[in-house]
Amino acid sequence: MAEIKIVKKVLAANDAIADMNKKYFDEKKILTINIMSSPGSGKTMLLEKTIIKLKDKYKIGVIEGDVSTTNDAERLQKLGVEVIQINTDAFGGDCHLEAEWIKDAYEQLNDTDLDILFVENVGNLVCPAEFKTGTDFNVVVLSTTEGEDKPVKYPLMFRVSQIMIINKIDLLPHLDIDKNKMEDNAKRINSEIQIFSLSAKTEEGLDQFIDWLIKQIKK
Amino acid sequence: MAEIKIVKKVLAANDAIADMNKKYFDEKKILTINIMSSPGSGKTMLLEKTIIKLKDKYKIGVIEGDVSTTNDAERLQKLGVEVIQINTDAFGGDCHLEAEWIKDAYEQLNDTDLDILFVENVGNLVCPAEFKTGTDFNVVVLSTTEGEDKPVKYPLMFRVSQIMIINKIDLLPHLDIDKNKMEDNAKRINSEIQIFSLSAKTEEGLDQFIDWLIKQIKK
Repeated sequence: MAEIKIVKKVLAANDAIADMNKKYFDEKKILTINIMSSPGSGKTMLLEKTIIKLKDKYKIGVIEGDVSTTNDAERLQKLGVEVIQINTDAFGGDCHLEAEWIKDAYEQLNDTDLDILFVENVGNLVCPAEFKTGTDFNVVVLSTTEGEDKPVKYPLMFRVSQIMIINKIDLLPHLDIDKNKMEDNAKRINSEIQIFSLSAKTEEGLDQFIDWLIKQIKK
Repeated sequence: MAEIKIVKKVLAANDAIADMNKKYFDEKKILTINIMSSPGSGKTMLLEKTIIKLKDKYKIGVIEGDVSTTNDAERLQKLGVEVIQINTDAFGGDCHLEAEWIKDAYEQLNDTDLDILFVENVGNLVCPAEFKTGTDFNVVVLSTTEGEDKPVKYPLMFRVSQIMIINKIDLLPHLDIDKNKMEDNAKRINSEIQIFSLSAKTEEGLDQFIDWLIKQIKK
């Protein structure tokens, strides 16, 4: 089918640009983190809390992906870091970010000499997993409220991620969720995945993730 | 760009089949409901509870869309209704259901003479909104845990839906969420949208939705 062939071509072109991004960011010694999740799992609040903890010591930039609105970008910009917004409705409402858009957005930063570049991808457990961005790490955020089965239902996302963050652990007492089962399901899909459990809201468990992040900084 | 042209062609072909589906289901007097949401917002539990309330009086069939696994289909099949599973990883891991797959799945039912056909779409707030299925109603389920801003961040989904269900209202006391704001945001995008607030888990508010459903039955 022609459609599938073209999709494959698009993915191959994207991968090539992602590889170039990776090489470029490596040379500039910028740690790059691509954060993916369903809508509403708490990516932006996680980024807010992370940026607050790191911004005095490290130079941070953010590429913010959304279908519509600049709400999240505005939340992060308030913290004093530079944020470039990509609204995919300019590209037909796409449900992911492509490597080339990351490159273009990065080049729009006034100060590109960063310690950490965060990419907040479009809220979606399917499409962003198919498009490499060229970042060092893919981080998938899964809220406790989303259920234990999501890693097996959306396996590609958990296969391409090196880090999984189980967010909103403060809600566990009010949910019928077995967090161990959630972790087991993720490990079944990707035995190498490293898991952090935290609440971005209460900051319980946040420091372990921050410590891990700091260890990855290249400068 | 060739890619965009082809996407438009795919959508036009899908729309034509969706219109045929609509006409066919109308002739057979089958009420058809397409349920869409993010992953983990509680579509399957809502369907379970709804089916339990209706199955003794009405003949119900379900088309279950997932990227991977038959978990949800199995949950619903246990209730004694016929369920046809569509796993989109057979179609390249697509993040939506297309009208033709709905038609094919419906034709696989042993008993097609239904009162209600439910379609549980793939968990995703972006792609399913772009693909008409030919059902009478699009129902978007939004969990209270997902935040107030989702209607404005994923406007197409709320524009194409006639019904919005705010699920997991039992969690409201534990969240910093203003449900009125969530509703206002949905109405800003689609002033005609009808909103039900409920907890599929505790069944608070469920009966209003069930009453509405029963009123739509065509036989």
